[in-house]
Amino acid sequence: MTDSRYPLAVAWLHDRPGIDLLDQTFLPHEEVRRPLDDLEGVFEAIANLRVRGAPAIGVTAAMGLAATVSRSIEAGTSPESPSALLAQLDRGARVLEGARPTARNLSHSLRALLGAMREWLDQEATTRAPQADLPGWACHPWSRALVGLADDIRSADAAQCRQMGMHGADLFPSEGVSLLTHCNTGALATAGSGTALAAVYELHARGVPVRVYACEARPVLQGARLTAWELQRAGIEVTLITDSMAGALMAEGQVDAVILGADAVCANGDVVNKIGTYTLALLAQEHGLPFYVAAPRTTVDKSLASGAQVPIEERSADEVRFLGGVRTAPPDVAVWNPAFDRTPAHLITALITDAGILRPPFGPAIQRLVD
Amino acid sequence: MTDSRYPLAVAWLHDRPGIDLLDQTFLPHEEVRRPLDDLEGVFEAIANLRVRGAPAIGVTAAMGLAATVSRSIEAGTSPESPSALLAQLDRGARVLEGARPTARNLSHSLRALLGAMREWLDQEATTRAPQADLPGWACHPWSRALVGLADDIRSADAAQCRQMGMHGADLFPSEGVSLLTHCNTGALATAGSGTALAAVYELHARGVPVRVYACEARPVLQGARLTAWELQRAGIEVTLITDSMAGALMAEGQVDAVILGADAVCANGDVVNKIGTYTLALLAQEHGLPFYVAAPRTTVDKSLASGAQVPIEERSADEVRFLGGVRTAPPDVAVWNPAFDRTPAHLITALITDAGILRPPFGPAIQRLVD
Repeated sequence: MTDSRYPLAVAWLHDRPGIDLLDQTFLPHEEVRRPLDDLEGVFEAIANLRVRGAPAIGVTAAMGLAATVSRSIEAGTSPESPSALLAQLDRGARVLEGARPTARNLSHSLRALLGAMREWLDQEATTRAPQADLPGWACHPWSRALVGLADDIRSADAAQCRQMGMHGADLFPSEGVSLLTHCNTGALATAGSGTALAAVYELHARGVPVRVYACEARPVLQGARLTAWELQRAGIEVTLITDSMAGALMAEGQVDAVILGADAVCANGDVVNKIGTYTLALLAQEHGLPFYVAAPRTTVDKSLASGAQVPIEERSADEVRFLGGVRTAPPDVAVWNPAFDRTPAHLITALITDAGILRPPFGPAIQRLVD
Repeated sequence: MTDSRYPLAVAWLHDRPGIDLLDQTFLPHEEVRRPLDDLEGVFEAIANLRVRGAPAIGVTAAMGLAATVSRSIEAGTSPESPSALLAQLDRGARVLEGARPTARNLSHSLRALLGAMREWLDQEATTRAPQADLPGWACHPWSRALVGLADDIRSADAAQCRQMGMHGADLFPSEGVSLLTHCNTGALATAGSGTALAAVYELHARGVPVRVYACEARPVLQGARLTAWELQRAGIEVTLITDSMAGALMAEGQVDAVILGADAVCANGDVVNKIGTYTLALLAQEHGLPFYVAAPRTTVDKSLASGAQVPIEERSADEVRFLGGVRTAPPDVAVWNPAFDRTPAHLITALITDAGILRPPFGPAIQRLVD
C-alpha cells in the first residue's frame, strides 16, 4: 500500500486501532511519524497543524474517528445498538470539527463517513464484503465496516491525485520539463501524491526528466519546509528560490511552465489560491509560459460566480513579523497579510482536474464538469 | 546637524576623535550606536555589516579613516611630514578596502579622501578655511583638513539625497500618495535621507500624506528589518508585506506608484537592483502604475551598454535555507540565490537623480547627464 515515491501523510497503524501520522511540524528537519489512538490525539494533531492541506486534514479526521471508535468496539466497550454507535460517532465528529473550525474539508469528510456508516448499518453489512487490505486489528464487523468506509475516503482522495497526476503529466513533453511551483500541493497536503505535484511524481515515475523550482511561499514557507523536502526525499530535482526570484528566473529562460494548486475554483474559472499565485500568473503571461492550476472537481464551487465573491482571509501580522520564532521586523509595525489572492481565469492556460484537462472558456467546461 | 526626521547612519563623535555609527546588526530590535575610534573597529564594522548600503559604507570608511588618523595627529604621534601622513592614510585605506573587497564605493570614497588631502597638503592650507561645524577635537590643522575633507564626502552624499528627495517628491500630488518600495534605500543606506526613501521623507516634511508599503525583501529582509524600522521611527505610515503580496496589493488598488533604488544604471536606462525589482516593474506595468527608480548620477555606469552586461552575483544558499539562524528548508536542498535582477528600461517610467528627473528615451538623457 505504501508508495515509496512520496511520503504518506497518513496511514493506518498496523498493530492496534489507530492512525500513523507524519508529523509535519518537524519538517523539514526530521521525519517523525506519530501513532494516534485516541480522539484527543487526533484533535491535537489537526489543531496544531501536525497535518495540513485540506484533503489530508479531511482524510486524517475520518480515519482518526474510525480508528478511535474502532478501538472501543474492539475492546468490547462498544455501544450496544447501531443508534448508540452513530451517536458516538457523531460526538466524535463534533469534537474533531472544532479542531479547525474553518476547514470545510474536515467537516465534509467526517459527515461523509457518518452518512456511509448509517447507510451500512441500515443494510446490516449485506451490501459490502470485508476489504482484504484493511489493518489486521479491524475484527468486529462494525470496525471492519467503519475502517473500510474511512479507507474508501482515503483511497478516493489518493485516486483523485493519481488522476490529476496522469492528466497533468500528459501536458508535458517526454524529453523533460522545468516547472515552477508555489506553496505545497504534494503528498503532504493529500492522502495521495498531491494535486499539482501529482503531475511531477507521475512524470518522475514515467522516467521523464523533471526539474522543479519551488517558491518558498512566505510567510509560512510551505515551499521551503514541505515541497522542497518531499521532492528531495523522492529523488526529484528541486531548487528552492525566494518568492521574489520567480520573475528573474523566467527571464533567464529556466522555466517551461508554472503548475500549482487551488483553494477554490469559481464557476468562471477564476482561482483563489495561496498569496503570490496571482503574481506568478502575470509573470507567466509576460514570459509566454503556460500557467496550470491543478485541483480536484471537489474544489470547484459553482456558487461562486467569480473570484471577487471569495472573501480573502487575513491572517496574523506576526506571521510576517516573525519567522521560526525569530522576529524580523519592528514589533508593532503594521502588516497586510492576506492568506490568498485571486487569479482571473484569463491568466490560466488550463485546469488539471481528476476528470481531465479543462481549457478556456472555463465557464462552460466547468458547467459540464460538475453537472 | 542632526535631522530628527531620519536616523543618521554615521556621524562624528563629539568628545574625541572617532565616529558614531548606528549598528544596523541590532535592527529592528534595538537602536544601538557604536563609537569607533580605531581602524580595527571601523574595519570590523564594515566587514560585519554593522553599516551597509554602498553610500553609507563609503562615507563611513572615509570618516573612519579621517578620525582614526586624526587621533594620532591630536595625540602628538602624527607623522612628521606630509608624505609620511599620506603614507599613513594610504596604509589605512588599504586596510579598510579589505573589509568589503567588492564594494566599489568603499574604495572610491577612500581614494577621494586621499586625493583631496594630497591636494590640500600640496597647497599648505591656503586654499581652505577651517570649517566651523567640525567636531571640537579637530584642532591640529592637518586634523581639521582631513576631517573637513571627509565631512565634504559625507555632506555631498547627504546633499545628493536631498536633491533626489526634492525631485522625487515633486512627482506626487500634494493630496497624498501610497507608494510601494523594496529593500532599503533610506537613511540607513546613505549618509542622508536615502535614495528612493528621500522622496518619502521629503513628502512627509512637506506635510503630504504618504503611506509606504514595504516589501520585506527576502532573503536578507532589508525591507522588514530596516525600511519598516526607519520609516516607523520617523512617524511615517508604513505597512510591511511579504514579496509575494505586491501583485495582490496592486490589484486591490492600494498602490499609486512603485519607487525603489538601483545598484547600477546602464547607459540605455536598464537598471540592476535587488532581486525582485524586475517582478515589481512588470506588476506595475500590468496595473498601469508608474515605476520610479531613484539613484544618484554616480550610480550611472556609461560603460555598461545594457543590463545584460552586468554579471549577477549569486550569494550563499544558506541565505535562502536559513532565516535569522533558523533553518527553514532541508539542509542540502539546491538553491538559486541571485542578489540582483535586471529591469529593462522600457518598464521604467522615470529615473529620479540628484540632477533631476530623467524620462524616456533614457539613452540620450543619460548621455547628457554624465557628460
